[in-house]
Amino acid sequence: MDQVNSQKPHEQLAEQLDQEMTAVNALIRDRMASKHAPRIPEVTAHLVEAGGKRLRPMLTLAAAKLCGYAGDDHLKLAATVEFIHTATLLHDDVVDESGQRRGRPTANLLWDNKSSVLVGDYLFSRSFQLMVETGSLRVLDILANASATIAEGEVLQMTAASDLRTDEAVYLQVVRGKTAALFSAATEVGGVIAGVSEDAVQALFDYGDALGIAFQIADDLLDYQGDSKVTGKNVGDDFRERKLTLPVIKAVAQATDAERAFWVRTIEKGRQEDGDLEQALGLMAKYGTLDATRQDALAWAAKAQTAMAKLPEHPLRQILSDLAEYVVARLK
Amino acid sequence: MDQVNSQKPHEQLAEQLDQEMTAVNALIRDRMASKHAPRIPEVTAHLVEAGGKRLRPMLTLAAAKLCGYAGDDHLKLAATVEFIHTATLLHDDVVDESGQRRGRPTANLLWDNKSSVLVGDYLFSRSFQLMVETGSLRVLDILANASATIAEGEVLQMTAASDLRTDEAVYLQVVRGKTAALFSAATEVGGVIAGVSEDAVQALFDYGDALGIAFQIADDLLDYQGDSKVTGKNVGDDFRERKLTLPVIKAVAQATDAERAFWVRTIEKGRQEDGDLEQALGLMAKYGTLDATRQDALAWAAKAQTAMAKLPEHPLRQILSDLAEYVVARLK
Repeated sequence: MDQVNSQKPHEQLAEQLDQEMTAVNALIRDRMASKHAPRIPEVTAHLVEAGGKRLRPMLTLAAAKLCGYAGDDHLKLAATVEFIHTATLLHDDVVDESGQRRGRPTANLLWDNKSSVLVGDYLFSRSFQLMVETGSLRVLDILANASATIAEGEVLQMTAASDLRTDEAVYLQVVRGKTAALFSAATEVGGVIAGVSEDAVQALFDYGDALGIAFQIADDLLDYQGDSKVTGKNVGDDFRERKLTLPVIKAVAQATDAERAFWVRTIEKGRQEDGDLEQALGLMAKYGTLDATRQDALAWAAKAQTAMAKLPEHPLRQILSDLAEYVVARLK
Repeated sequence: MDQVNSQKPHEQLAEQLDQEMTAVNALIRDRMASKHAPRIPEVTAHLVEAGGKRLRPMLTLAAAKLCGYAGDDHLKLAATVEFIHTATLLHDDVVDESGQRRGRPTANLLWDNKSSVLVGDYLFSRSFQLMVETGSLRVLDILANASATIAEGEVLQMTAASDLRTDEAVYLQVVRGKTAALFSAATEVGGVIAGVSEDAVQALFDYGDALGIAFQIADDLLDYQGDSKVTGKNVGDDFRERKLTLPVIKAVAQATDAERAFWVRTIEKGRQEDGDLEQALGLMAKYGTLDATRQDALAWAAKAQTAMAKLPEHPLRQILSDLAEYVVARLK
C-alpha cells in the first residue's frame, strides 16, 4: 500500500469518484421517491442516509472508469447495486430480529416487519427498472444471477448456520450469497458496459468475488478477535448466536469426540453455559483455526490483487488493489 | 356466456391450455429447485402445489396463443408470472400475520417469517432469471414496472387501509398493485412476445387491467355480502380488520358528521363494539354503496370485454371474454 498517502483506500475511492457519487446519490433519492406512498422514502432515507460507506456503488463506478467508460449508465448501475444492497439489509432486519444496523435502530424497530419487507420489495423493483434502462441484456443476466445467489445464500445460511455438517464449501457459498455475489456483480457490470474484453470482464468478476470473500472472512474472524470498540460488536456474538463461521468450522473438522459433543451442545442445541465462549476460543487456539482463517482471508485478498493486476493501468486500479489489502490489514 | 358449455371459463382455459400448463408446471418445479438449500422447495411446494387456479400463467399463455405465438418463451413468462405471484403471497404472509391461505396454514406458521421473506426473494430472483432468458427488453420493462406497481401498492395499502382520507382514486391504485398490475402484465407480455401491433398490445393490457380490477372489487364486495360457505371468509372480515374497501369508502364520502364519527371510531381508531358491523352495513344500505360497488365491478368487467373484442377472433378470445363476465356473475 502506498504509505505516503495516509487516506484509507475507500476514502481515496470516495475522493476520486466524488462527482459521480453526487450524481448517484441524487439518482437514489429521485428513484426511491414515491408519489403515492410517503412511507417508502421515510423507511429508506433512514438507511440510505445513515452514512454507509457506499462501497458497492463505488466498485461499479471505479470498474467502469478504469475500463475507460465514458457514458452515464454506470451511474444507474451504481444506484441499482446500492438499492439491491439496501433491500437486502431491510429483509435481513426482518429475519435476524436485530436491533441495530450501522449504529442506529433498524427500520424494523422504528416501523415494523411489514414496512421492512414491502419497502425492500419496492427497492428491488426500482433497481430492476434502473437496470432495464441500461438496455443491456448481459447486465440484466449478471444481476439476475447475483440476486439468485444472494437469495439462495440467505436461505442456506438460515438452514446451515447451526448445522455441524456445514463445511468450508457450504460456508463459502453462504459468504458468496451474503457479500461476494453483489461485489462481483458490481465490478463485472462496470466492465461489461465499458465493453472491455472477456478476459478483463472475468478479472473484474474475480476481483469482486475475492474481495467480498476476504471482507466477509475478515468480519467473521474479527467477531472472535476484534476490538469491540473498533468493530462495534462484542467478542463471540456469532458463538452466542450459534453461527458456524470459518474459525469454528475448522475446529469442528478436527474435533475429538469430546470436543464434538461440546460443539453439538453449544452450537447445534444452543445450550450454552458460562465459560463456553472461553472453551470455544481454547479449542480454536488448540487447532490454530483463527490463524488459519486469517491465512485464508489473506489468500483471498491476494487473489483479488492478482485479478486487478490483469486490468489496464489506472490510478483507480491501484486504489482497488490497495482496498483488497486494507480489508485484511486490520487482522492480527 | 355460452350457456351450452357448463364448464366455468377458468376450467375451459385449463382444458385449452392443458399441454402448455403441464410444461409450465414442470418448469416451475425445475426452477424452484435449489441444489444447496432444500428449504426452498419445501416452502414453495407448499404454495405452488396447493392447487391455486393458476389463473395468471394461463392469462399469459392464452394471450400469446390467441395472438398466434408459436415459440416457447410464453412458457417461461407464464412461470415468471406465477413465481412473482407466489413470492407476493409469501411476503403477504409475513405482513398480514394471516393464518390461512388457500385453506391451508400459511408458510409463515409452518416455518417462520425468515423463510417466507427469503424464499419469496429467491422466487423473485428466479422469475427475474426466467424473463432475462426471453431476451426481450420490452418484456423486462413491463415486468419491472409491474413489480414496482405491486410493491408500491402494497406499501400504499399498509398506510392507507385505515385512513379515512383514502378515496376511490387511492383505492384503485391499491387494487392495481394488489391484483391488476400482474394481470395486465401477464396478458401484455403474451402479446409482446407474439409481436402483435401496438393496438393489440394495448388491448391486452386493458383487458388484464380491467379484469384484475373487476376481480378485486368483486372480492371486496363479497366480503360484505358473500356466502361464507362459498367465499371461505366471514362477512365483515375487512371491517373487523379496519380495511377501507370500496363499499365503505363510498359510504364515508357521503357520511353525516355523526356517521363520520362512527367510521373514525371503528376504522381509524379500531375501537369496535358489538353491533358495529350491523351499523356499518346499515350505512352502506342507506347510501346504496354495495349496489354502487357492484355497478363498478360490472363496468370494469364490461371494459375488459370491450378490450378483448379488439383482438383477433379465436376460441380463447371467447373464453377470456366469458371470464370477465364470470368474475362478476357471482355478485348479487
